[in-house]
Amino acid sequence: MITETVILKGHIIDSLIFAKVLDTILQAGGTFDISKIDVGTRREDPTIAKISIRAKSPALLEKILQAVQPHGAVVERISDCHTMTAPQDGVLPDSFYATSHLSTQVRLKGKWVDVEAIEMDLAIRVRFDPPQALAIPMATVKKGDCIVTGRGGIQVFPLERPKGRDVFSFMEAQVSSERPHQHIITDIAKRMRLIRANRHKDLIQGSEASNKNIGTKVIFVGGPAIVHSGGRDALSWLIDEGFIHVLFSGNALPAHDMEASLFGTSLGFGLSAGHIAPHGHEHHLHTINKVRGSGSIKQAVESGLIKDGIIASCVRQNVDMVFAGSIRDDGPLPDVVTDTVKAQGAMRAALPGVGLALMVATTLHSIATGNCLPAKVPTVCVDINPAVPTKLSDRGSFQAVGLVMDSSSFLKELARELDWSG
Amino acid sequence: MITETVILKGHIIDSLIFAKVLDTILQAGGTFDISKIDVGTRREDPTIAKISIRAKSPALLEKILQAVQPHGAVVERISDCHTMTAPQDGVLPDSFYATSHLSTQVRLKGKWVDVEAIEMDLAIRVRFDPPQALAIPMATVKKGDCIVTGRGGIQVFPLERPKGRDVFSFMEAQVSSERPHQHIITDIAKRMRLIRANRHKDLIQGSEASNKNIGTKVIFVGGPAIVHSGGRDALSWLIDEGFIHVLFSGNALPAHDMEASLFGTSLGFGLSAGHIAPHGHEHHLHTINKVRGSGSIKQAVESGLIKDGIIASCVRQNVDMVFAGSIRDDGPLPDVVTDTVKAQGAMRAALPGVGLALMVATTLHSIATGNCLPAKVPTVCVDINPAVPTKLSDRGSFQAVGLVMDSSSFLKELARELDWSG
Amino acid sequence: MITETVILKGHIIDSLIFAKVLDTILQAGGTFDISKIDVGTRREDPTIAKISIRAKSPALLEKILQAVQPHGAVVERISDCHTMTAPQDGVLPDSFYATSHLSTQVRLKGKWVDVEAIEMDLAIRVRFDPPQALAIPMATVKKGDCIVTGRGGIQVFPLERPKGRDVFSFMEAQVSSERPHQHIITDIAKRMRLIRANRHKDLIQGSEASNKNIGTKVIFVGGPAIVHSGGRDALSWLIDEGFIHVLFSGNALPAHDMEASLFGTSLGFGLSAGHIAPHGHEHHLHTINKVRGSGSIKQAVESGLIKDGIIASCVRQNVDMVFAGSIRDDGPLPDVVTDTVKAQGAMRAALPGVGLALMVATTLHSIATGNCLPAKVPTVCVDINPAVPTKLSDRGSFQAVGLVMDSSSFLKELARELDWSG
Amino acid sequence: MITETVILKGHIIDSLIFAKVLDTILQAGGTFDISKIDVGTRREDPTIAKISIRAKSPALLEKILQAVQPHGAVVERISDCHTMTAPQDGVLPDSFYATSHLSTQVRLKGKWVDVEAIEMDLAIRVRFDPPQALAIPMATVKKGDCIVTGRGGIQVFPLERPKGRDVFSFMEAQVSSERPHQHIITDIAKRMRLIRANRHKDLIQGSEASNKNIGTKVIFVGGPAIVHSGGRDALSWLIDEGFIHVLFSGNALPAHDMEASLFGTSLGFGLSAGHIAPHGHEHHLHTINKVRGSGSIKQAVESGLIKDGIIASCVRQNVDMVFAGSIRDDGPLPDVVTDTVKAQGAMRAALPGVGLALMVATTLHSIATGNCLPAKVPTVCVDINPAVPTKLSDRGSFQAVGLVMDSSSFLKELARELDWSG
Repeated sequence: MITETVILKGHIIDSLIFAKVLDTILQAGGTFDISKIDVGTRREDPTIAKISIRAKSPALLEKILQAVQPHGAVVERISDCHTMTAPQDGVLPDSFYATSHLSTQVRLKGKWVDVEAIEMDLAIRVRFDPPQALAIPMATVKKGDCIVTGRGGIQVFPLERPKGRDVFSFMEAQVSSERPHQHIITDIAKRMRLIRANRHKDLIQGSEASNKNIGTKVIFVGGPAIVHSGGRDALSWLIDEGFIHVLFSGNALPAHDMEASLFGTSLGFGLSAGHIAPHGHEHHLHTINKVRGSGSIKQAVESGLIKDGIIASCVRQNVDMVFAGSIRDDGPLPDVVTDTVKAQGAMRAALPGVGLALMVATTLHSIATGNCLPAKVPTVCVDINPAVPTKLSDRGSFQAVGLVMDSSSFLKELARELDWSG
Repeated sequence: MITETVILKGHIIDSLIFAKVLDTILQAGGTFDISKIDVGTRREDPTIAKISIRAKSPALLEKILQAVQPHGAVVERISDCHTMTAPQDGVLPDSFYATSHLSTQVRLKGKWVDVEAIEMDLAIRVRFDPPQALAIPMATVKKGDCIVTGRGGIQVFPLERPKGRDVFSFMEAQVSSERPHQHIITDIAKRMRLIRANRHKDLIQGSEASNKNIGTKVIFVGGPAIVHSGGRDALSWLIDEGFIHVLFSGNALPAHDMEASLFGTSLGFGLSAGHIAPHGHEHHLHTINKVRGSGSIKQAVESGLIKDGIIASCVRQNVDMVFAGSIRDDGPLPDVVTDTVKAQGAMRAALPGVGLALMVATTLHSIATGNCLPAKVPTVCVDINPAVPTKLSDRGSFQAVGLVMDSSSFLKELARELDWSG
Repeated sequence: MITETVILKGHIIDSLIFAKVLDTILQAGGTFDISKIDVGTRREDPTIAKISIRAKSPALLEKILQAVQPHGAVVERISDCHTMTAPQDGVLPDSFYATSHLSTQVRLKGKWVDVEAIEMDLAIRVRFDPPQALAIPMATVKKGDCIVTGRGGIQVFPLERPKGRDVFSFMEAQVSSERPHQHIITDIAKRMRLIRANRHKDLIQGSEASNKNIGTKVIFVGGPAIVHSGGRDALSWLIDEGFIHVLFSGNALPAHDMEASLFGTSLGFGLSAGHIAPHGHEHHLHTINKVRGSGSIKQAVESGLIKDGIIASCVRQNVDMVFAGSIRDDGPLPDVVTDTVKAQGAMRAALPGVGLALMVATTLHSIATGNCLPAKVPTVCVDINPAVPTKLSDRGSFQAVGLVMDSSSFLKELARELDWSG
Repeated sequence: MITETVILKGHIIDSLIFAKVLDTILQAGGTFDISKIDVGTRREDPTIAKISIRAKSPALLEKILQAVQPHGAVVERISDCHTMTAPQDGVLPDSFYATSHLSTQVRLKGKWVDVEAIEMDLAIRVRFDPPQALAIPMATVKKGDCIVTGRGGIQVFPLERPKGRDVFSFMEAQVSSERPHQHIITDIAKRMRLIRANRHKDLIQGSEASNKNIGTKVIFVGGPAIVHSGGRDALSWLIDEGFIHVLFSGNALPAHDMEASLFGTSLGFGLSAGHIAPHGHEHHLHTINKVRGSGSIKQAVESGLIKDGIIASCVRQNVDMVFAGSIRDDGPLPDVVTDTVKAQGAMRAALPGVGLALMVATTLHSIATGNCLPAKVPTVCVDINPAVPTKLSDRGSFQAVGLVMDSSSFLKELARELDWSG
């Protein structure tokens, strides 16, 4: 039997962390003794627990340590983190440490240093003088970069339950089509007002004045069903009113939205009458072709070709747009980033400052965005298919609140909550 | 090769009936000659076609005739329908004819007689003096009843495309969460206004004055998710305004609705705050118990125990309510019909005059109601799960228009379309 | 601030119970002090915790006590349970205690007495001489019965994690179509072998010899899709081999199964060729009519009318069958219990001794059965629609393991695991 | 009223084409006279119909012609097709004709010329000397290319019902989880044997000897759930036996498959035990990193790093693999084509000769592949979620047969049908 002692600190009882760590050890095939536990007797008091983990083999012990670390368990025998150099461009050392999207520190020369740009499934590149740690994607590593390996000297901070009791409080993130939506939408609207005000303060008074915890950006990640199902007016209004600051989508959402502006249809469905326009796909292709002819989406709006809708509102409100390509695209539109690695880079660049992520009616872009978001960003995933929020959460974005409803009903209710009269 | 000639008459070309009949013959393994066809050259002109069906065996020919008959194919060699007497109570003669839910006539002593109370999967009981034909369920047949058997002397009238181009026009009944809902809801609202006006005329001037085709009743078939998801206020309003005249549901919808009135929760979910009330199921059981103590739902409302909501509105507006029991019920509530055969009977009794069926968020009651509705009744099936409208249509209710959206959004949009200000 | 002290005992740390109780208190709006905690330092040692719960009002305190009790929290100030008499037949006293499906005791004249026939959402009827406690449905209470009210003197035993690590170990009950099924099916098969052996011992040597924890019955709850989708042969084989002892279903499963025996179709689908037999619903109705003519399902099999399939195997193997009616039934078949309250009674009567519940392709019957099962019965819910296992678990049957796959693939894999060569 | 006469020829009655054309005219708001109809009286005889279409405006008439053309209606007043030159690279002339995926001809200098590489939603580029027509994507058009515009001189050949009665016969392509799968899988297996034999002939005797209609390639389009859910062995076997010749997927399928080879897990799920390996995502990332270090997937297999599974079999069998990138990818693997336009090109290049497309457990790649396939290629779409085959069909791939079942059960049944003993 091999033993290692770990320490857990904080509100580990009421946040379930203590229980989860013990559970994880048993699940993985280890056993434990609780060598010491000081339970805070009031809610405010932190608890400190010392747990001796026992396993049959060093490999199993390593596996268990790996599993309990994301819950905040720190190996008692503190050391600096280990590093190895990358053997070639785009390839990490074999035993590199893969990040979670929880706040993380590494110990460099005796000091705990925050890992910047944290995101799940990346590697940590460190520099020593001055001490610095940065989460980087595998594809961007350069030969010779110092990469963190193993588990020692790494500390992860689990999400704690927020004090407020709104929908974003931890452990409420459940998916059900049978729950009332109204209060969730009310909480989202409240947060959107807060962020808009905070952003305003930031723009007027500089970023010092604004509240870092609230953020200054709302990211909207959307799919084309928003246009099909009739949510275009409500979303345009939200953009016009300054509630949305970044738009992530593929080729289809802007194509459908601009088709609606040019032809009054979406993939050939007449949006007012609901009948299929014959061979309506042609409108879709002609729209893309016309915008290609304009040179860019921005020019298509500014030249007056595209007069209204989601994209026109985005252009007018200077919303930061990232359109990522996929192999199912027609055209594509001129601004679509067809290289997926570059598109991921463009998405990452737009994230700092985000205080709320709304993901509506798109599986691919929701999961891709979820991959890049730190766990602390409140996230809402809306889809008529309950499998989409479930999948998002399965892929690691456990903080996402799922709402099972059609996108147009969601956008209308949200806009009404924010005083839309449509 | 055995041959039989059938005749098809009407707008059989543009309603696809001609093509479907030929297709059916081939699918079933037969062949055909078109011995004569007079195609109307203008839309108004009917077409007459005479088709010789050939099959390898009498059994196959019989199978083909059985299959083409619901499309209106009438065996040329006209005869009276055949009948046999029921061998015992509740048991039909072996070769009884099973109805479809399309308008049907049988030939009795040389005359075509309408089958009354037509509904799918029933038998036809005939009387001769005077000639009369009635569709009856298997369970209600009495020993000695004359029951129609075989295929001869039976004529089925396929649904033809209505002249209007609203959502209920034939062949538009498709299910997709990606289509815009707004125009469908607009069409439903229009029909609800029409029926309410027609009902009013009926009540004031007698049934002669009202329009039989439009009907004088809207049936609402609903499940408990209406209450969970926040659609209670909108539905209550629709009832108060006289838009709904019959309510079909199980035990859960009224129990949840009255729980909301008594405790402000639905199965323990706080409807305003969205949090789970602890052990909230207790509210549900206490509600049922209190209403049982009142003796009946009506008394629970009239005594002031239940003050608002769907059921209170129904009681006040004299809506005809049928609550059918199921094995998953708690309690049940005092008015629930626990015998399922009796419950089917109560549902059937409420159907005459129905001009629109709205089925919202319930699979069981939607299919059960669909089983009892003639094909000519416009039917809308709303569910967040696309499988529900698909299933309804698979079970034979092909006339049903599917709407994939959550029930609360549907009810709110519908009520707003009818001038609700909520 | 009002205070009440509760005591928690057992493996409350690693089974997450301690954490959940604290969480529940905070969620409900209360606060707590941990006045004492003795943590067992090894896995075997139980933990004892004393928690002072504080709330702003007696109502809130009551709500919190109600919420923490299902987790095993016992009010320290021990007293006998309170009772009131039922005011009329079928009506419980207002403040009656609603059961969970966890093992429960009530304190009568200073002694803790097991509540027999425990099941969720019932009332507890007590008798004093000798002390006895029985869980009863609301509908069966008689005027004057002594019914437990309030929370005092009631003790609930939370499920603890079983020692084994098979699929039925607590907290593994997750639903995902992306997980491998093979090992789950292996675990189910293993348990079915165990129960068959145990049942054998029971029959040969009397019930003393058999293992109560394993049980002596497998209940199979099934829907008609089993026949449609091609799982009939595998299921018949499982019955023939003695792996299934109770069958719960509605009217459709036996009707489809016997249609397959009589006509080779299921609702008109040719089971071998996959094409729709024309107007195939007729086979369904003719089957029901023929079996009605036989007088009973048993006679239909024994007379040779029905030669093979699920029902024929059940009759031959003396499987206990409960067919519960629903309003969507055709016919129904002669043995169907059309009164839903009586059907619930018949289901309850078949449950003692059950060691495994398999629920396949039926929402209604799965939830209804789940309502009647104690939490300790291992339960598997198989459906192609992930919403079904989720719903079952939402309705309280948290112990159910969900498997998202089509019923025929499940039955074939399960039968192969038990050495079927089909 | 403006009038245009169109001609319909072929088995337009029993293939429903005649009825659909008339229906389409009415739906679009036009009217018609049937100026002449010669109905073949036997199945073999073609029918010729001449229909005068009337509309209120030239725009409406144009819309109607556009709508009836995909059904094979040819404007009587025959002319050559119109063309315009592309105004710039990547931009088509405004009124370009958008293709369907049905066989198409254009009239050039009085002669009907086949459009090569037909696929939905492309443009047609023509050359005159010699006459040649090619379907091209918008992105590849060059300034000055002659592009077909308008509707004149274009002829589309609707799919006719094949003579066989297997699952691929037209109009059987319905999606339901309640249908038996067995015969569909039998039909697929039969076709796979045929194609393998035909390919063999092609390789041995040259392409003249093989049957063009059957094709010489099976394309397999797959998602990672194949590995999760336990279908890896069956699929590897199918590849080893020579039944699959092209593999389309994203980054995840090969990554999961190779993770299974290296670590025995898939995204951290132990494939044999079904438990989550702690922080199992690390295996996924380490796998990708190791393969990146190998330089290519092929080298990873040939060097012995990857020993078994889907990818190893593909490398050994020289299966043509196209891995298309998406923004949700980790890594990605070295062979992934990250540019989506280039990936579409690589997919197109692999299509000639395909006689069967199997799409399993992937929405994105199924739709993308469907976009590039001619309508005449038999296509099967397997997913546990019925929305996926529905979506594929909604996007135009109406020929796809949907199978609602989990991927591992499908692959096992298919392999067993082809004599796998696993």
